[in-house]
Amino acid sequence: MTEQGPECRRALDTAGEVLGFSLAPFVDPQPAEPANAYDFTRIATEHAFNDAWTRAELLDRRTRALISVAITACLGILEPLRGQLRIALNNGVTEEEIVEAFIQMAIYAGVARAFDSYAIAREVFAELTP
Amino acid sequence: MTEQGPECRRALDTAGEVLGFSLAPFVDPQPAEPANAYDFTRIATEHAFNDAWTRAELLDRRTRALISVAITACLGILEPLRGQLRIALNNGVTEEEIVEAFIQMAIYAGVARAFDSYAIAREVFAELTP
Amino acid sequence: MTEQGPECRRALDTAGEVLGFSLAPFVDPQPAEPANAYDFTRIATEHAFNDAWTRAELLDRRTRALISVAITACLGILEPLRGQLRIALNNGVTEEEIVEAFIQMAIYAGVARAFDSYAIAREVFAELTP
Amino acid sequence: MTEQGPECRRALDTAGEVLGFSLAPFVDPQPAEPANAYDFTRIATEHAFNDAWTRAELLDRRTRALISVAITACLGILEPLRGQLRIALNNGVTEEEIVEAFIQMAIYAGVARAFDSYAIAREVFAELTP
Amino acid sequence: MTEQGPECRRALDTAGEVLGFSLAPFVDPQPAEPANAYDFTRIATEHAFNDAWTRAELLDRRTRALISVAITACLGILEPLRGQLRIALNNGVTEEEIVEAFIQMAIYAGVARAFDSYAIAREVFAELTP
Amino acid sequence: MTEQGPECRRALDTAGEVLGFSLAPFVDPQPAEPANAYDFTRIATEHAFNDAWTRAELLDRRTRALISVAITACLGILEPLRGQLRIALNNGVTEEEIVEAFIQMAIYAGVARAFDSYAIAREVFAELTP
Repeated sequence: MTEQGPECRRALDTAGEVLGFSLAPFVDPQPAEPANAYDFTRIATEHAFNDAWTRAELLDRRTRALISVAITACLGILEPLRGQLRIALNNGVTEEEIVEAFIQMAIYAGVARAFDSYAIAREVFAELTP
Repeated sequence: MTEQGPECRRALDTAGEVLGFSLAPFVDPQPAEPANAYDFTRIATEHAFNDAWTRAELLDRRTRALISVAITACLGILEPLRGQLRIALNNGVTEEEIVEAFIQMAIYAGVARAFDSYAIAREVFAELTP
Repeated sequence: MTEQGPECRRALDTAGEVLGFSLAPFVDPQPAEPANAYDFTRIATEHAFNDAWTRAELLDRRTRALISVAITACLGILEPLRGQLRIALNNGVTEEEIVEAFIQMAIYAGVARAFDSYAIAREVFAELTP
Repeated sequence: MTEQGPECRRALDTAGEVLGFSLAPFVDPQPAEPANAYDFTRIATEHAFNDAWTRAELLDRRTRALISVAITACLGILEPLRGQLRIALNNGVTEEEIVEAFIQMAIYAGVARAFDSYAIAREVFAELTP
Repeated sequence: MTEQGPECRRALDTAGEVLGFSLAPFVDPQPAEPANAYDFTRIATEHAFNDAWTRAELLDRRTRALISVAITACLGILEPLRGQLRIALNNGVTEEEIVEAFIQMAIYAGVARAFDSYAIAREVFAELTP
Repeated sequence: MTEQGPECRRALDTAGEVLGFSLAPFVDPQPAEPANAYDFTRIATEHAFNDAWTRAELLDRRTRALISVAITACLGILEPLRGQLRIALNNGVTEEEIVEAFIQMAIYAGVARAFDSYAIAREVFAELTP
């Protein structure tokens, strides 16, 4: 098992900011899992939140978030899409802008993919409705 | 919000014919959704049911439906596949023809995709069993 | 290396019929390739042409060919798509029917995939223009 | 063959604006193609440039273009990606912002997809270098 | 309906060995399904367990299983992935090796796909925890 | 532009070992590219060759290479597949083992994907034929 180094701590700090809640419980080593499972989680977390989301200078977080919604939606990977939608809304992307991204997706990636992904967006929008 | 124009009404008429039930409740604007959500739904509905499914002249609906089953199955998008399977059965495609399409898919797109999609077909076939 | 058994011979006969030319030169073992390369080619050929294309009873070859165009186009695998387009035209599918399949694909799989695949169709159509 | 109606003309106008050059030669019916090929081209053009790119109000063209780069890159459809990259640069997206989108893609969609798509970006950047 | 021939029986024997339980109940014809459904199941079973998994000579079952985990994970087809993970663990692949395969996948296929697939691995690992 | 730190140097060392030739010319900043292009290349190189390929303990390089061939082949990304095939052959994977991986792929991911990828393998095998 690898020690939690400075990259991981910085990644968790950025993840907390970007997501609006702490990712630490998901990254901490779990007793029942194989010994290197923590390496997998830690590497993926560092890649996302240390190497990509810390880069706010050349592309602001709002646009970065909207692009990441498009990426995960087009790959058809629904749980990561849910995470990106939460990041988007937490960083000032409006629901209207997300819908416009899905219109763009309906044209270029097809209505099947767009509808399937939009069902997740609808669920995430509903989480925030008071 | 865009008015429901003639393209949308024609799309809903064709959808009703093709599907065997009214799509209108799914297209009508929902109060809790973002203002442009209706545009997304309307555009996608018009593309599918006004621009594609109205074209029965050069390719009959049965074949068009079987092709659309293959398209959504190969993309691995299961809920839209369910819709296409219902359209297929509602337009005279037999269960046997659908199984043959899955055999073709097992070869060219692999048994993993074919089995995963066939599980949806089995559920749709069961809906119609008295 | 596996002997060329009756399944393989039957597959090559069906391939010849379906394609309109002999597949044998592509399946015959090549001296420079690894010893099991022939097994790969033979297995794939038997799966396609012995297990799928011999089944003309429950789904005719025309429809089967059009579905296989949709499968390979939606997977975005362009050389196999070229092969399926040739099979389609050789089995009585019209260019118009192929275009209609691409219209269906533009809606459900998106205009990017449809345009990219249609470029291959255009090349195959041109092969047959006197 | 369908007449070139007002939707198509409006789509071609928007395409000209967005792309910086006229799309008309690609949409005009070609004599050697099947009769309905023009319908395919026209429908796809109208969907992209009449139904999506005219919507500049809720999502500006710069962001829309960057999202469309992400969509076509993630689908791995390289020629449409080339088109979206040209649209992006023509609408004020900087090369740096495109690179940031590829960094986001390297994480979420993997370095294989990101590198393969970035090779196209490099070619499009080079077109504009004096 | 096709008789259960020697290829199918050999496939079922190999499947039993590889999986650690009998596949026969899933392959046997079901009364409510279309007549050719059994052909689909039988063809897919023979392809997997007669044509591929019997080949233990040039690539051992452990490595073959790990590769098949990677294949189904990268295609994003989760139920077949679950089957391949069970096969892997039943053929001596360790949980640690599977995690390493997911690390490789996180880099090349992206963290979205890797995380989504790893959730299935976690469930399969838990099945075996006493 | 980010300095070439110890992670990048270690990644380049591992890349040299794994590939059999130096990756440095591809990673060094290019004058004509946008300022952050080097960050993209560096991040991707570090992810692949610092975070994944340095991990030889729990999964040996031969198996890791074969899995990476399967990953890039299943994603249908042909240039990165070419790289992984070269890595595989440079780390003791035999051509026969690669062919077996393609047989596994033909079943689970379909003959279209397997054939398309195998064409690249054939080219890489030929590079090494004296």
